[in-house]
Amino acid sequence: MFESANLDHRVSKSIYKREENKLREALLEGQSRLLADRGFAVLVLIAGVQGAGRGQTVNLLNEWLDPRHVQTRGFGEPTQDERERPEAWRYWIALPPKGKIGVFFGAWHTEPIMRRVRGATSDDEFAHEIAQVSRLEKMLTDEGVLLLKYWFHIPKAEQKKRLKKAREKLEAPYKKFVAVSEAFLRRTSTPEAPWTVVPGIDARYRALTFGRHFLAAINTRLAGKPPKRAATRLAKGVAPADGLNVIRALRLSQPMTKPQYEDELDKWQSRLARWSQKKAMRGISVVALFEGNDAAGKGGAIRRVTSALDARIYDTIAIAAPTDEERVQPYLWRFWRRLPRLGRFAFFDRSWYGRVLVERVEGFAAEADWLRAYAEINDFEQSLVRHGTVVVKYWLAISKEEQLKRFRAREQVSFKRFKITDEDWRNRKKWNDYEQAVCDMVDRTSTSIAPWTLVEANNKYYARIKVLKTICKALEEKIS
Amino acid sequence: MFESANLDHRVSKSIYKREENKLREALLEGQSRLLADRGFAVLVLIAGVQGAGRGQTVNLLNEWLDPRHVQTRGFGEPTQDERERPEAWRYWIALPPKGKIGVFFGAWHTEPIMRRVRGATSDDEFAHEIAQVSRLEKMLTDEGVLLLKYWFHIPKAEQKKRLKKAREKLEAPYKKFVAVSEAFLRRTSTPEAPWTVVPGIDARYRALTFGRHFLAAINTRLAGKPPKRAATRLAKGVAPADGLNVIRALRLSQPMTKPQYEDELDKWQSRLARWSQKKAMRGISVVALFEGNDAAGKGGAIRRVTSALDARIYDTIAIAAPTDEERVQPYLWRFWRRLPRLGRFAFFDRSWYGRVLVERVEGFAAEADWLRAYAEINDFEQSLVRHGTVVVKYWLAISKEEQLKRFRAREQVSFKRFKITDEDWRNRKKWNDYEQAVCDMVDRTSTSIAPWTLVEANNKYYARIKVLKTICKALEEKIS
Repeated sequence: MFESANLDHRVSKSIYKREENKLREALLEGQSRLLADRGFAVLVLIAGVQGAGRGQTVNLLNEWLDPRHVQTRGFGEPTQDERERPEAWRYWIALPPKGKIGVFFGAWHTEPIMRRVRGATSDDEFAHEIAQVSRLEKMLTDEGVLLLKYWFHIPKAEQKKRLKKAREKLEAPYKKFVAVSEAFLRRTSTPEAPWTVVPGIDARYRALTFGRHFLAAINTRLAGKPPKRAATRLAKGVAPADGLNVIRALRLSQPMTKPQYEDELDKWQSRLARWSQKKAMRGISVVALFEGNDAAGKGGAIRRVTSALDARIYDTIAIAAPTDEERVQPYLWRFWRRLPRLGRFAFFDRSWYGRVLVERVEGFAAEADWLRAYAEINDFEQSLVRHGTVVVKYWLAISKEEQLKRFRAREQVSFKRFKITDEDWRNRKKWNDYEQAVCDMVDRTSTSIAPWTLVEANNKYYARIKVLKTICKALEEKIS
Repeated sequence: MFESANLDHRVSKSIYKREENKLREALLEGQSRLLADRGFAVLVLIAGVQGAGRGQTVNLLNEWLDPRHVQTRGFGEPTQDERERPEAWRYWIALPPKGKIGVFFGAWHTEPIMRRVRGATSDDEFAHEIAQVSRLEKMLTDEGVLLLKYWFHIPKAEQKKRLKKAREKLEAPYKKFVAVSEAFLRRTSTPEAPWTVVPGIDARYRALTFGRHFLAAINTRLAGKPPKRAATRLAKGVAPADGLNVIRALRLSQPMTKPQYEDELDKWQSRLARWSQKKAMRGISVVALFEGNDAAGKGGAIRRVTSALDARIYDTIAIAAPTDEERVQPYLWRFWRRLPRLGRFAFFDRSWYGRVLVERVEGFAAEADWLRAYAEINDFEQSLVRHGTVVVKYWLAISKEEQLKRFRAREQVSFKRFKITDEDWRNRKKWNDYEQAVCDMVDRTSTSIAPWTLVEANNKYYARIKVLKTICKALEEKIS
């Protein structure tokens, strides 16, 4: 993999000067077109062997390009706020928006490689981490990011010489590092985002090689058509042959009287309050998301949970239309940026499941996009859980008749009237499509680490208690 | 101040039920109008004596209102990432956007009061902190925020009883806390943002009193006209009688040959690199901002500084048109959110001075707004400096002739052509207006803690070296 990089490539000063000028001109033109186009973001990963010219390349790139539209991020030891979120968090929130060029000096490859070099992970764990990285990268490219991965390489003797000159400490033994990296590169080189190895011995050769490759990659993408979406269409609204599905299997009207409710509410709220105050809570975080039919009582359920908690340790996050900062990022970005730190609860009123619910049914997302979302969401939730987050997911289900009753009732109560919009009536007409979307969602994303809780919600009392119970039990399981 | 709050106010259950229903309906209507209007943000500060029902009020507010458009933030002990920025940072980045209601449980009053209670600050320091809080609040209201400040109060005996029941620890001795708070409230009660004291003994009385006041405040603002702007207009473009000003006093063409430049560049870049690697750097941060005539060489100067630094410790931030998340916030919000943490450099290519430069000259900001910006900017920079940030501000000045030469030259070099836009030619026509704006800016915002460095920039070599020298010296002064 690194054989060519060990050859003694050289470029003379005079040739370099001439070629650099041409390159620079073409790069600036490419960057202008990218900015005008704003159809995709470019993300450049700068990786490689210590001393091989990674830092110089980053600076060079900032010199060649209009730096106002380049965002460079270096990732060193994680800071406290980074440690308090899943490992990928800091990369996510640093992603460049469409039209811009992001340069990552170190990225999601760094830690898996270093952990393996240090022997902190087994071969299996390493393989697992590689698979995660591949899926993350696939998702980014599926979302339209032009992902360019460069590996700068020098031979061992050259590294030794350079570190001595720069009085730098060796971060990892050369041989081991190169062996692990080679395995990593091989297994994360995909058609969408291959690694490009750049020989680092001669600064001029390195600069031209990198620059030309980078330019060609941008120009190719600018010239090309947007990647095609899979054309297959799923049959819509086909009910199961026997009419049964996970939603229909529910007995939506569960008994609970008001006095029973008040007793239970008190009991479970107190229990939740106690759990939330435990010391162990400081080492975990809780993400609870609420989806459900319109008027199923999501808001009311959330408030019964939050009123058991100190207002200082939770956030309620209502997911509405994305802002323009969110629209120029990959889909999951707007959820990553809202993840709670350790010790905190985040309640999502609607969530990342919008893509496989409303966006699917209303056709806002292309089929290929919502189809791949299932796997992406599972990966996302897995990174939450791996980081110690308790993930609780509720689907609040009511019957079509109950919904009608509630819509009508809301229209009667003036202060609830704002809750009913034309959109709600329109959604109602697509009841069966939504039902199928929900069943698919549950089938594909109810995992042992982040299961769906289906809540029979025709009786609000029953629903709220079930919501409270579930979160209490999830907490108990995690920290007791 | 708290006399009425100590009276034994009571509301019966039946009256409460009736009145709460009415209140709730009216609140939801007010909230809907606020959302439709999107003309201003509402920020509610919940403060007061421990045990007086602050937490309950926050939960109640979330119950009364549509919680999807309420963002509640509790501020406890600052986290590491909060400590690494100026004290006000965490409040700034949590401000609600226009159309929404922000609820702060604890805010900028908490720390000044607690520090005084603990005896960590003298009376003078307390007065200073009060003045800072007042200026921050004035700025927010000037920016259109409806700032509602509530103080919940109970007598000492009642507090004792409640803490015992809730098994809570007393955070501060009652008498001392109330005395300090009273002084604080008195001195931060302004016409734009007065404190409202709410008696906390009876939960129902407390809820109705608070709710009705809150409702009235929102409705009054919704019904009223936007606050009037000062109508005075400054004379525009009047040059000083003797034709001299800080810009004209500069000798814009300074001598420096290319070989001299190369020597100096090497020397100062090495020096900057050394300073940036010092251990003491981890305890400070650096904010350097670059303003100047179009084509004065800001980008080139920034790159000569950044290329001396490890790409992992700096960010270059180009200030362009605000995004929609930024447009619904007070002016300085978009700069607060980009402040560097400790150990880092942030280079701003254009900055918060836009308001008193381009926005003033082009009439994008009302006169009253850019006039108050001078003081607001000074306050902002003072909070940076107080936190240990080195603030370096450059104005790169070139002559009108030199600018023309550079514009023409850029048009010749194809890869620089993108740097010249129609706007640049338009701005050039307003040369004198800009000059006056620059002189006013320097006069009003060059302070001993954050002075302007005027850079004679007709000779790029000279300018770049002066920029490098200045930042080196500022660093040396701070950490040597």
